[in-house]
Amino acid sequence: MAVYTEPSDDELAALLRGWGLEGLRNFKGIAEGVQNSNFLVEAHQGRFIMTIYEKSVALEDLPFYLGLTEQAANAGLPAARPIRTTDGLLTQMIRGKPTALCSFLDGVSTKRPPASHARAVGAALARLHQALSDFSGTRANDLGPRDWPSLWKGRSRQAEALEPGIAAAVDTDLALFRTDWPTDLPKGIIHADLFPDNVLFLGDEVSGLIDFYFACNDFLAYDVAVMLNAWCFEANGREFDLVKGRALISGYESVRPLSQAERDALPILARGAALRFFLTRLVDWMTPMDGALVRKKDPRDYAGRLAFHRAARSAADYGAP
Amino acid sequence: MAVYTEPSDDELAALLRGWGLEGLRNFKGIAEGVQNSNFLVEAHQGRFIMTIYEKSVALEDLPFYLGLTEQAANAGLPAARPIRTTDGLLTQMIRGKPTALCSFLDGVSTKRPPASHARAVGAALARLHQALSDFSGTRANDLGPRDWPSLWKGRSRQAEALEPGIAAAVDTDLALFRTDWPTDLPKGIIHADLFPDNVLFLGDEVSGLIDFYFACNDFLAYDVAVMLNAWCFEANGREFDLVKGRALISGYESVRPLSQAERDALPILARGAALRFFLTRLVDWMTPMDGALVRKKDPRDYAGRLAFHRAARSAADYGAP
Repeated sequence: MAVYTEPSDDELAALLRGWGLEGLRNFKGIAEGVQNSNFLVEAHQGRFIMTIYEKSVALEDLPFYLGLTEQAANAGLPAARPIRTTDGLLTQMIRGKPTALCSFLDGVSTKRPPASHARAVGAALARLHQALSDFSGTRANDLGPRDWPSLWKGRSRQAEALEPGIAAAVDTDLALFRTDWPTDLPKGIIHADLFPDNVLFLGDEVSGLIDFYFACNDFLAYDVAVMLNAWCFEANGREFDLVKGRALISGYESVRPLSQAERDALPILARGAALRFFLTRLVDWMTPMDGALVRKKDPRDYAGRLAFHRAARSAADYGAP
Repeated sequence: MAVYTEPSDDELAALLRGWGLEGLRNFKGIAEGVQNSNFLVEAHQGRFIMTIYEKSVALEDLPFYLGLTEQAANAGLPAARPIRTTDGLLTQMIRGKPTALCSFLDGVSTKRPPASHARAVGAALARLHQALSDFSGTRANDLGPRDWPSLWKGRSRQAEALEPGIAAAVDTDLALFRTDWPTDLPKGIIHADLFPDNVLFLGDEVSGLIDFYFACNDFLAYDVAVMLNAWCFEANGREFDLVKGRALISGYESVRPLSQAERDALPILARGAALRFFLTRLVDWMTPMDGALVRKKDPRDYAGRLAFHRAARSAADYGAP
């Protein structure tokens, strides 16, 4: 939630020249993105967001992230379009850090989206899956089931202190995933982090899909499972909102119907997705922060979700018809 | 450089209703203002900046700050115009914190402004002084010469560690100000903090005068003295740029000529202004920060300026004709 790199006048002028921008009217740091520096840039050519990638993003993955948001934009999805330099490049460097310029997306994210938004974003996710089905780049999911045991290792005591009873339950989850995690569902590029703060709306219409920095190749239905966790629970994380679940799934299926195997897998995929966010939040919760004002997210929000998923028996429990 | 208060959906909707705004298109936290939370707000009615005042601003002074930027805007100056609520109020409350909405000003601040900018901003300062000459509110300068001894008290050892030789020189400055500080120069509302980051430009034209939170009643020529410090020194703070000084003063005088008494006072006023920023930076430098990422400004930048002002003999040393 801060700006880490502040370009000098000369550095900014050089960057703008690289993109062929003229007549700068506005340049403001925006408090978005936990670990990158983001700026609103307005010039004759229009409004843009400039991102300076701090060390959190692996450089070799940038062409993947920027390439797929470009392909999504080209397919008519409301994704930010990277502006290439006059030399045709996707990034420029400032102080050794790659910097990208993308089209500015109008819209507002809602913290507690209504069911109408869940439906619209479900449909948008399916369109995104279709638009990226022939994307040439690949990136492994480095926060997938194979990675969860190492995230969990050595943290059970701390987790137990936060949420008594969780340690044994997580051990059971991990044992189950080792044997029962699906192996042959339809795969493709998934967003993997399509939370409400990564979706912009104008009214009930999705106007922006942003923050592709967890995108990877994985089961398409896992993306639906992430969204069931992110969009369809009450604030306490313990009550699933069946109306929103139904809206999200029917929105998705209005574009791309789920196969029977995908439906059958929803409970375990949703349980895995909940564990993924529980674990990464747990790691952040335990890690001291240096300097930047980052509001840590409480891992316990996902303990309630995990309990729900452990009890779920079928896709119908999530509102699938 | 951060957002401290993040309104919920309901809180934001209530605020927007209060101002009569409809059709929200954008709402983004912006990384401006060290101790307030600022947001870009875009709706049918236009673009605005919303500010949630955290504890740093004295509530009783808000009508003063907002009233004078309103009067400046009404006089045609490029100042942010506060949008009153449908009930005619300048602020609304969120979680006990007053919140204001002001018109959005296009423009970009330059970190190392050229002489053409110094001239333009000198003229803008004089117009501001004229526009506020009949302003009804008053606020004492709480960072004026009477306040400097208490800012300095108990810090001479720390200052000496930073910049050997400074302690005795500051003691001499303070003794001089006690006897020689002017008493009868023309007074009025001054901005008191018109640094380059508080002025927006479109090309060579001043398009925004912002951040009035140090404004107060004091000598008009003290505002010129602040700007000589803020706009006319090389980055090392030791070399005065006579071309920029000349541009700033002649810009100011193109609108409001300085009296002979004001010219004669420029060296001591500039010396006082430099001490004011040296002392507040010194206090910040010594004060541990909790959490927020604030880049502290080095007090030593003003040690060099102080040395220059101590040697100055007349307004001509600053470029006055």
